Amino acid sequence: MRIDVPEGSLFGPANLPYGVFSTPGTAPRVGVRVGDSVLDLAAALGDDVFAAPTLNPFMAQGHERWAEVRRRLTDLVSAEVPGEAVHAVADVTLHLPVEVADYVDFYASEHHASNLGRLFRPDAEPLTPNWKHLPAGYHGRAGTVVVSGTDVVRPRGQRKAPDEPSPVFGECRRLDIEAELGFVVGTGSALGSTVSTSDFASRVFGAVLVNDWSARDIQAWEYVPLGPFLGKSFATSVSPWVVPLAALGAARVPTPVQDPEPLPYLREREPWGLDIELAVTWNGEEVSRPPYREMYWSPAQMLAHLTVNGAATRTGDLYASGTISGPAKDQRGAFIELTWGGKEPVRVGGESRTFLLDGDEVSITATAPAADGTRLGFGEVRGRVLPSRDG
Amino acid sequence: MRIDVPEGSLFGPANLPYGVFSTPGTAPRVGVRVGDSVLDLAAALGDDVFAAPTLNPFMAQGHERWAEVRRRLTDLVSAEVPGEAVHAVADVTLHLPVEVADYVDFYASEHHASNLGRLFRPDAEPLTPNWKHLPAGYHGRAGTVVVSGTDVVRPRGQRKAPDEPSPVFGECRRLDIEAELGFVVGTGSALGSTVSTSDFASRVFGAVLVNDWSARDIQAWEYVPLGPFLGKSFATSVSPWVVPLAALGAARVPTPVQDPEPLPYLREREPWGLDIELAVTWNGEEVSRPPYREMYWSPAQMLAHLTVNGAATRTGDLYASGTISGPAKDQRGAFIELTWGGKEPVRVGGESRTFLLDGDEVSITATAPAADGTRLGFGEVRGRVLPSRDG
Repeated sequence: MRIDVPEGSLFGPANLPYGVFSTPGTAPRVGVRVGDSVLDLAAALGDDVFAAPTLNPFMAQGHERWAEVRRRLTDLVSAEVPGEAVHAVADVTLHLPVEVADYVDFYASEHHASNLGRLFRPDAEPLTPNWKHLPAGYHGRAGTVVVSGTDVVRPRGQRKAPDEPSPVFGECRRLDIEAELGFVVGTGSALGSTVSTSDFASRVFGAVLVNDWSARDIQAWEYVPLGPFLGKSFATSVSPWVVPLAALGAARVPTPVQDPEPLPYLREREPWGLDIELAVTWNGEEVSRPPYREMYWSPAQMLAHLTVNGAATRTGDLYASGTISGPAKDQRGAFIELTWGGKEPVRVGGESRTFLLDGDEVSITATAPAADGTRLGFGEVRGRVLPSRDG
Repeated sequence: MRIDVPEGSLFGPANLPYGVFSTPGTAPRVGVRVGDSVLDLAAALGDDVFAAPTLNPFMAQGHERWAEVRRRLTDLVSAEVPGEAVHAVADVTLHLPVEVADYVDFYASEHHASNLGRLFRPDAEPLTPNWKHLPAGYHGRAGTVVVSGTDVVRPRGQRKAPDEPSPVFGECRRLDIEAELGFVVGTGSALGSTVSTSDFASRVFGAVLVNDWSARDIQAWEYVPLGPFLGKSFATSVSPWVVPLAALGAARVPTPVQDPEPLPYLREREPWGLDIELAVTWNGEEVSRPPYREMYWSPAQMLAHLTVNGAATRTGDLYASGTISGPAKDQRGAFIELTWGGKEPVRVGGESRTFLLDGDEVSITATAPAADGTRLGFGEVRGRVLPSRDG
């Protein structure tokens, strides 16, 4: 059969993102999304590396193999494929596509970092002195990275208002999102070695959307001096489809001007970002359109920084950009910025809203220019807030 | 044959720590140290769970199974064991015993946190306002946890002295250690659930020694506002033997008085620490004896805090105590404290020393009271500093 690609689909032959799916009674395995279909790669290509429940074994085969498989798939989807290898996307269950090794979250948007600086440290300069010299980042919890559609239980923890003498324990009252882009490392690097900015394309397999759920009240009380911990570690959602780096060539744009010039290990001949337009939807209503092209630090610079001290990387490492915020208010990728710390509510579903309530659902989507002149889509990353649980 | 246990051995029948070993031409598998021998558990017990290259499959079987195996081993080592299951510890290679899932580092010593506060933030209170309310912690890099004996390449990175206008790139000049105790999670907990202080014994399998190598100059420039990142992520060494929690009963001691009283989720009927005495050796010379009994936050409190927001845990999660420092100068577990930021050198090998030089070797060992009235030992965690490498 030929796979039908509907007019205007964001999953045309110039995209071909990879995911892990199952159908009732079958084991999770690797598939590629084409239009509204999923192509079962183990069945279509007869290669057991795609029968695995994660993309890791395929990613570990390296970037020449990724290119070869993409060429075969490009040919295949314009020709006949065995009918039994094709499933309607509506009929499959999508799983976490990658076994996450280490998870790092950066802070690469100048607009976001400035906004959060003003909100968290109102008496200081918005950007810390190091911010324009290095892509600031921290390690997050790999074991709580979950696939889109996973419900998020409202976390509990300690919080303390500035005017209270001591902390109280309870449900998070300032539950927030962060709309981010995440990069998946395909082939690792050895302990004691580095990955230069020019090695980026041979190391990074693809990109996903990330929602870095954030408990702002827990975070504000805990984060000095060791950084975010329980305010973030309860859940990080990712989209089910990994868009290959090879599909994002037409989306390349220069980064904003970097001044001061970065140190040599962070330089690229032409530092490049990606013209990816995100959309954040809150209970079905679009509230923000964060533009990835505004990010100060490039994807290659983040990886070069992460490894400059000789830290090893592994297949399945995930590093995210940090919240994507543009200069305009309706381009902010976190509700704490959009509502200015809760002081400037937004209208959602006819109500005045600040942070997330139980039952709220947030969805993040994104599109980018594709090589064939169309636009390509990232899979949606969606999550619903469930009430806190005891014990 | 009977396994000989030399008089005064720290690895007598009341210890029985687990590790992963190989002999020339054979695959890594699980063993138990008895005296100066390693007992091959797959060979001795005929159970394939011990033929795995990590302790994870055995740990995942749960605490009742851990207790059952310990009973069998206790009987076995006082009786006849098949000769082919016994190897001299000098003849085996020891491997990383655990496949580390997530790695968290706490900051549980009041003496250490106060000392570092004075050194890093001389104009502020030594302890941040949250310190006595919660066990502060952060996620580290699981992929760079290495076994004792692994060389550590001096990291490179950005540093900036307070009086310099902008950062420079180069080799770390203030390479340091942190002597810590690490706890290995045996059985995980689900996303959205918590692990109470009373659940500790059913979740935690055992303990290792940890050397959290630290690049103080890189750390000082990067750590505000997101916490330690490249200053720590280049290497974290652990001892090859995991001392079972069941072996540490005789080492239990009350924690120091906790004032203010912690919030209910951090309370224990009697918060308990461990009377473990560490020794830090620098190029063969003992320079410090950090006492674990001085730690403010207990092992059970750290795990309860880590999961109070609903974060899942997995088999192989490792969480470390943070530097162990006592009140006396020769009880400090990091050289930045021992030499007061490099201003008060110590004598090592007849020389005046502050931070680590290339070729230096650091070893951390520890002993604790055992149930049979003897003392038990942790395996040594040792590492040598190699010069920085290009690229």
